[in-house]
Amino acid sequence: MLALRPATANDVPLLRTLIHEFAGFEKLPASITEEMLLRDGFAANPRFHALMLEWEGEAAGYALYFDYYSSFEGRAIFLEDVYVREGFRRHGIGQAVIVYLARLAEEQDCFAVRWQVLDWNLQAIQFYKKLGAEFLNSWKTVTLEGKALHDLAGSTK
Amino acid sequence: MLALRPATANDVPLLRTLIHEFAGFEKLPASITEEMLLRDGFAANPRFHALMLEWEGEAAGYALYFDYYSSFEGRAIFLEDVYVREGFRRHGIGQAVIVYLARLAEEQDCFAVRWQVLDWNLQAIQFYKKLGAEFLNSWKTVTLEGKALHDLAGSTK
Repeated sequence: MLALRPATANDVPLLRTLIHEFAGFEKLPASITEEMLLRDGFAANPRFHALMLEWEGEAAGYALYFDYYSSFEGRAIFLEDVYVREGFRRHGIGQAVIVYLARLAEEQDCFAVRWQVLDWNLQAIQFYKKLGAEFLNSWKTVTLEGKALHDLAGSTK
Repeated sequence: MLALRPATANDVPLLRTLIHEFAGFEKLPASITEEMLLRDGFAANPRFHALMLEWEGEAAGYALYFDYYSSFEGRAIFLEDVYVREGFRRHGIGQAVIVYLARLAEEQDCFAVRWQVLDWNLQAIQFYKKLGAEFLNSWKTVTLEGKALHDLAGSTK
């Protein structure tokens, strides 16, 4: 049986562990710490919300989301991560998270739930297509970070 | 001379006009209304922030941004739109917006400013590359909206 519940500050050590596990799966670096998660998700004006996913009482994964805004269409929810540990897949947990967020989106008058997926993750892509999601293939994501961010912030121009 | 200032509720009619102008340029539909912008940007717990861009006292464009969160790397700012009207381009206004947000990002302990660009907008892509931005080419954006969102929200599964 799945239990899906909002994370509390007590979940932060486990949440950090799960995030680093997921980063390993995605072959991406992760520098997030417990301090950052506490400061940003569990104090006043949280910058994200997290869900803890439990299967038969065991930690099966997590999801992390936040408010997103489309200037053209209004309120949306951005699903940053949904991670289900390997031993807990094929139980419908990922779908349960998306249904939960779809309901929350409708309650909050949002027009969409959005997220991103790595182009090599064909299993996930197949799953999202089955749910009726669409792919914004002409949108490229741009990031300004590290030295380039720092240099521009210090720019006198 | 450029003036770049946070939008107030009084700017909402002009902001709505500029957003619809920009949607026309991007060949995308826009359903945003003044009521939505007032509710979501200028009440308690705003879901976005907007900047009004003025050149020699004339309305030259706008920018719209909000908080974004990377579970792997922490706080970021998402630049949803930066729009400069045709007659006001090549004055460095777009760059001034990105410098403003780069500074805000550093002040708020954010690791990045992120945004998206349409793959046919080669002029914008060239400009972002010159600023030192990187392209997350393997990330695909997924959206669940309309009937698919509604059906999933009503799903009993």
